[in-house]
Amino acid sequence: MDHLDRLIALALDEDLGAAGDVTTRALVPDTVRGRAELWVKEDLVLAGTDAFARVFRHVDPEVTVTFSRRDGEACAPRTVVATLEGRLASLLTGERTALNLIQRACGIATLARKAADAVAGTRLKVLDTRKTPPGLRGLAKDAVRAGGAWNHRFGLFDGVLIKDNHIAAVGGSVREALRRAKAHVPRLVKIEIEVTTLKQLDEVIAEGADVVMLDNMDDEQIREAVRRIGGRMQIEVSGGITLERLPRLGELGVDFVSMGALTHSARAMDLSLEIDIARPRA
Amino acid sequence: MDHLDRLIALALDEDLGAAGDVTTRALVPDTVRGRAELWVKEDLVLAGTDAFARVFRHVDPEVTVTFSRRDGEACAPRTVVATLEGRLASLLTGERTALNLIQRACGIATLARKAADAVAGTRLKVLDTRKTPPGLRGLAKDAVRAGGAWNHRFGLFDGVLIKDNHIAAVGGSVREALRRAKAHVPRLVKIEIEVTTLKQLDEVIAEGADVVMLDNMDDEQIREAVRRIGGRMQIEVSGGITLERLPRLGELGVDFVSMGALTHSARAMDLSLEIDIARPRA
Amino acid sequence: MDHLDRLIALALDEDLGAAGDVTTRALVPDTVRGRAELWVKEDLVLAGTDAFARVFRHVDPEVTVTFSRRDGEACAPRTVVATLEGRLASLLTGERTALNLIQRACGIATLARKAADAVAGTRLKVLDTRKTPPGLRGLAKDAVRAGGAWNHRFGLFDGVLIKDNHIAAVGGSVREALRRAKAHVPRLVKIEIEVTTLKQLDEVIAEGADVVMLDNMDDEQIREAVRRIGGRMQIEVSGGITLERLPRLGELGVDFVSMGALTHSARAMDLSLEIDIARPRA
Amino acid sequence: MDHLDRLIALALDEDLGAAGDVTTRALVPDTVRGRAELWVKEDLVLAGTDAFARVFRHVDPEVTVTFSRRDGEACAPRTVVATLEGRLASLLTGERTALNLIQRACGIATLARKAADAVAGTRLKVLDTRKTPPGLRGLAKDAVRAGGAWNHRFGLFDGVLIKDNHIAAVGGSVREALRRAKAHVPRLVKIEIEVTTLKQLDEVIAEGADVVMLDNMDDEQIREAVRRIGGRMQIEVSGGITLERLPRLGELGVDFVSMGALTHSARAMDLSLEIDIARPRA
Amino acid sequence: MDHLDRLIALALDEDLGAAGDVTTRALVPDTVRGRAELWVKEDLVLAGTDAFARVFRHVDPEVTVTFSRRDGEACAPRTVVATLEGRLASLLTGERTALNLIQRACGIATLARKAADAVAGTRLKVLDTRKTPPGLRGLAKDAVRAGGAWNHRFGLFDGVLIKDNHIAAVGGSVREALRRAKAHVPRLVKIEIEVTTLKQLDEVIAEGADVVMLDNMDDEQIREAVRRIGGRMQIEVSGGITLERLPRLGELGVDFVSMGALTHSARAMDLSLEIDIARPRA
Amino acid sequence: MDHLDRLIALALDEDLGAAGDVTTRALVPDTVRGRAELWVKEDLVLAGTDAFARVFRHVDPEVTVTFSRRDGEACAPRTVVATLEGRLASLLTGERTALNLIQRACGIATLARKAADAVAGTRLKVLDTRKTPPGLRGLAKDAVRAGGAWNHRFGLFDGVLIKDNHIAAVGGSVREALRRAKAHVPRLVKIEIEVTTLKQLDEVIAEGADVVMLDNMDDEQIREAVRRIGGRMQIEVSGGITLERLPRLGELGVDFVSMGALTHSARAMDLSLEIDIARPRA
Repeated sequence: MDHLDRLIALALDEDLGAAGDVTTRALVPDTVRGRAELWVKEDLVLAGTDAFARVFRHVDPEVTVTFSRRDGEACAPRTVVATLEGRLASLLTGERTALNLIQRACGIATLARKAADAVAGTRLKVLDTRKTPPGLRGLAKDAVRAGGAWNHRFGLFDGVLIKDNHIAAVGGSVREALRRAKAHVPRLVKIEIEVTTLKQLDEVIAEGADVVMLDNMDDEQIREAVRRIGGRMQIEVSGGITLERLPRLGELGVDFVSMGALTHSARAMDLSLEIDIARPRA
Repeated sequence: MDHLDRLIALALDEDLGAAGDVTTRALVPDTVRGRAELWVKEDLVLAGTDAFARVFRHVDPEVTVTFSRRDGEACAPRTVVATLEGRLASLLTGERTALNLIQRACGIATLARKAADAVAGTRLKVLDTRKTPPGLRGLAKDAVRAGGAWNHRFGLFDGVLIKDNHIAAVGGSVREALRRAKAHVPRLVKIEIEVTTLKQLDEVIAEGADVVMLDNMDDEQIREAVRRIGGRMQIEVSGGITLERLPRLGELGVDFVSMGALTHSARAMDLSLEIDIARPRA
Repeated sequence: MDHLDRLIALALDEDLGAAGDVTTRALVPDTVRGRAELWVKEDLVLAGTDAFARVFRHVDPEVTVTFSRRDGEACAPRTVVATLEGRLASLLTGERTALNLIQRACGIATLARKAADAVAGTRLKVLDTRKTPPGLRGLAKDAVRAGGAWNHRFGLFDGVLIKDNHIAAVGGSVREALRRAKAHVPRLVKIEIEVTTLKQLDEVIAEGADVVMLDNMDDEQIREAVRRIGGRMQIEVSGGITLERLPRLGELGVDFVSMGALTHSARAMDLSLEIDIARPRA
Repeated sequence: MDHLDRLIALALDEDLGAAGDVTTRALVPDTVRGRAELWVKEDLVLAGTDAFARVFRHVDPEVTVTFSRRDGEACAPRTVVATLEGRLASLLTGERTALNLIQRACGIATLARKAADAVAGTRLKVLDTRKTPPGLRGLAKDAVRAGGAWNHRFGLFDGVLIKDNHIAAVGGSVREALRRAKAHVPRLVKIEIEVTTLKQLDEVIAEGADVVMLDNMDDEQIREAVRRIGGRMQIEVSGGITLERLPRLGELGVDFVSMGALTHSARAMDLSLEIDIARPRA
Repeated sequence: MDHLDRLIALALDEDLGAAGDVTTRALVPDTVRGRAELWVKEDLVLAGTDAFARVFRHVDPEVTVTFSRRDGEACAPRTVVATLEGRLASLLTGERTALNLIQRACGIATLARKAADAVAGTRLKVLDTRKTPPGLRGLAKDAVRAGGAWNHRFGLFDGVLIKDNHIAAVGGSVREALRRAKAHVPRLVKIEIEVTTLKQLDEVIAEGADVVMLDNMDDEQIREAVRRIGGRMQIEVSGGITLERLPRLGELGVDFVSMGALTHSARAMDLSLEIDIARPRA
Repeated sequence: MDHLDRLIALALDEDLGAAGDVTTRALVPDTVRGRAELWVKEDLVLAGTDAFARVFRHVDPEVTVTFSRRDGEACAPRTVVATLEGRLASLLTGERTALNLIQRACGIATLARKAADAVAGTRLKVLDTRKTPPGLRGLAKDAVRAGGAWNHRFGLFDGVLIKDNHIAAVGGSVREALRRAKAHVPRLVKIEIEVTTLKQLDEVIAEGADVVMLDNMDDEQIREAVRRIGGRMQIEVSGGITLERLPRLGELGVDFVSMGALTHSARAMDLSLEIDIARPRA
């Protein structure tokens, strides 16, 4: 059971508990079989197909789920993207949980696609953040890539990001913070440090880091920062970034822009499951 | 460990893994203590305070979290709603996961408040659905109530909701479906049935149910349905409901209107944690 | 893993631990195959067949378990109800845990059948309670239905049952208790309230509830209560109910009678597994 | 979390699920405190006090449970054996699960006491078996000792018990079975072997074992078996043992008699929780 | 999931976390298949084959692992002991965890073989202890038997071992300690007691035990102890035992010698996985 | 429960199972209290103190464990490094599991110290690998740092390490492998690539990577590689590294040398727990 399986088990448990799907158990005999189609109902970028299929594997390993489209494909309304076959009861019991997952994944991928399109042709890459739906970090990160944006660190374990509080904890010295990080963290994680002023930036340049994050700077400040850094570090811009501002940032010479909104405020997209009782084959 | 604790454990595990918060471990000595304030940054209805506090209990039971506002209270920007004290390292490590939870809960409560306000003064109650963030059903349902809307069933286990596929599974007869439900489900769950036409409605009226759901009907059809039902069942309206349509529905004499958007598309609200290194007391 | 799987995993873990079945491991080579028959040894109503089969799936997915009888069938002594095939070692290792489950399920179903027979021909339905073997709620509830009796609520989550302490907690007012329940609980759960006097009953009638429970009343009181209620609520009788009293209750016009004894004191029925070493097929 | 904690977590989860105790949540404010007494309602031997207390620790660590009687004490009706204090809501939520556990434990202890009394003054010890309520092995074994009877092996891991199928698996030779067991099992577990005929017994005597189980023998056969064994092995008698037969067995010179009924068919004893809303202290 | 599966799940989780194998995911398409051979690189006794295979079952149930050698076989360098087929990505992801397990198991089995060889031809059996790698008790115990040594008790549950602190806890009396043990422990576990002086030994002889452990005695003391015991109990020698001392102990007439080093200090043996991209079959 | 807690729970479960510590339960009353000292018995570097203490917290939260020395301190024989107080039964039950953990951690730290000392004064850092005891990755990595060596990546998630099979999977091109890695992995993990020839090295230099691993090269090859790289990447040397070879490597100008032996073959160090029954305070 990897993390996604654990989340699915939890989601099914909150929907079924020990008492189960009382409606289906009362009305749908175990012998009745069903077919279903997963319909896209609005323009979207597909994501979360693996999670959707796994829900039914948890509910009943004999349900088959076959996707005809893959994560990352743009789909128009009225597209059928998957077909399902199996016990009707299992289709009904898994439906809501599976939809809850794929609708959110598609929402994120679709928003990420919009952001990626906004910087197309520039060197700028749009990054996600750790502001993901709790328990769905992996699903969200996969959806971001499916949409064409890029992943920042996955969690607190695969990248160092030094913020003001970390610096304060070592006595206020940017230099000391960077030195301790270089001394103690595993050899293959990069060190990024957040700065809010050009003065802080100079200290970072003096000591060296892998990436610097320019937090909440306006275009003018960013332009000056890029000039001072002179290619010695990668540059990330962060803080209140909107889709509208992206094209302009693409021209400033920074490497990355991170957007929490990709994962914290994407709405659920409209997909639905059309279920039929299977006709026995002649 | 109840369900919320299991979700929090999962969320922390995806953020920390076995390797942990490498930045904090490298930079923040265990002896440094911190204080923090949780700031509201936009108009919102507070919810998810319990989840926020529990995250820190998972990270470090010695962190204290004290809320001065309660779930359901409307808060203006620049309100401090909680203070935290404990090891600085623990505050930094739990920050993102705790914010991810409360920001979503507040988003749902704030939207629920808008919906509840839209039907104020009518008999109509706005209900949520099972379209909740996977793993966060309880958090979402609590936030809905904090906002002033009402809970439909929690999961598949605490209410019968008969849809077209269930009816098809028993051979297409509304009557047979209702009879089986009455015969097999636990004695204290109510039976609701979905109808899309007035003809189906007549069958339901003939056989009797606790609640009838009018799915995707226009105002005219709803008015006629209410007339035919004549108070013998509770009435729920469902399907593509927007905040704008709510006031008009309030005048039609139905009991409930369910809105998936309350929980599937609420955006995260802006709250942030301001952390300081604690000054030792003189 | 649903709840029954979790219980089975726990039961196997307490029987096997990390050290396992030392006798079988020392004596039975993995290559020896076996066949077994599950024999009924006394008159009983069959239940728990799914749990029995699942135990072997946990021990060894290659064991096949085929039942020729179904839950709810009455079986006479010397009936073979299932055959098993697989590694002899797996049959021996799973035997006791599988029997422990099915023997208890059959005990409950057999007692439930007796209770159901005692009220046959009347409108009275015999209900179970939450007095089930801890960890086996679902198994017990299924066995009750297999026997022909009915399920009260499954747990604390799928029905409201207001008792004296709940009433006291809101200041002693039956009316206030019912109002709060109506205001706060999910829309599809019914509200039942327990009364011990006719005076309390009158308050309930005034405020309205879905079901009223007459606790520990004698036949005379029950008769009077039925008269006052006049069909406006469903009526449950509870408290010290014996099989002997059931037929008389059937004539009083109440809807339900709940019996804790169905699940808290059913004895284990006698079934045994006859195992043979499998002869290779010619 | 040891095994009992895992069972309690499972039992609470089946009673509460993700939705929780909807009645209590709707009616009992978190600020109301309660006191409760645990009353014994019939003659019984107390057992399961630890399990009872732990349930409330799971529900709410701030509830205090204080027992004035200990496992193994005989209690008369109308004895108060424990007092509880804490949030009224927590007392109500944990009540049923806690009672379900202690009522079963007391049932086993009380039956074990009857069996122990029936052999008092003889060398015979009454043993339990592995026919325990699934998930409650430890609780049941503790209750057996509280009643004054003795524990056979706990599970398949702490004792070797060779039955006919094990012998068949090594080719039918009692001698070979015993040799393999002696060669392969951990050094501190004893080896017991079941025999159904005196001929088999002679083979066992020739090869040597720690304990021999005489299965389904009548008094005459048992007497002869005891004579042949002549003190070289411990002797257990098993199969269809009733309380009535125990005194006679006590005179035959065997060491142990095992009774499945101690744990598979003990009924739940009557204990109840009397809860009051706590008066604030003046 | 038995204990080994739980350990494997934990080991994979610490290696993969929620973020997974980032290298393989970026570089190895899911459609590429691979073959691999498991090579022995130094003289060793094979063990841990089941654990090795299970790792891949956790990673991807479609990987096949076929061993041509069995636990307990001595293997020379350059022996191929298993072949694997499946998705290349799955082979790469599981490789390290699977090797970590089998390398340790082989280390233990190889050391156990040396110890067993050192006492060949004597009645002395070399036993392991509970000084095993945490979480790997079963793997270690199986490896000990594969090497030809014997298992002492598995854990604290399947054998009584009375040490000085236990004796002190009952007031210092060896006699009282043995009596309580005989009175309270399950009937099929043996009672062993540790003695450090001949005086203590005499007390044990007087009261009787199943096994006596002579702790840290020299050859002379052991010889005298054997003489006094005179065959009435089994004898275990323990404390600072080296491979060199074993042959001499074999002549002293003791039954067992226990060596913690078998499992606490065996080094990892050299085995490696040679992976190739599978050629498609013509 | 973080990963270490999960491993401890597993280790205690394999030692205790559902049946528990039968010796202690039979002999040591719950009211007897004890004190203990943890003694170092040979020269070692201390590590694993947190794991040691946590074991007792799992067994009994009321046991106090107080260390007077910290991870990383060198300790001579006969040093007392911790004192414990609590129920004697809890001390006895947790003793072996706690020792099994700290003895292994100290073994790793002591070996890491030797390696660190061997390169003191050079720029070379000794790294660990992923060849850690399964389930104990974190404990082992912490012990490596306590000893003064450095951590390579923690798992497959916090660093990219491209090996020959990954290159083969993309068609054999080093360039393509590096490009895909740069395109797909999270922004804060570094990319390391393994080369076995100078020709491969040239390809890596052409495309660029963060770190290059020179696998199984002799000193001459390493020297040439360092020259060609010319400071453009960090350099790791790997493959069959012994303590003896370390000083020489320190002079070659490489940055890191990784040694699997640090964690896969460290032996357990000798520490023991001296337990006494606590004298009541006067």
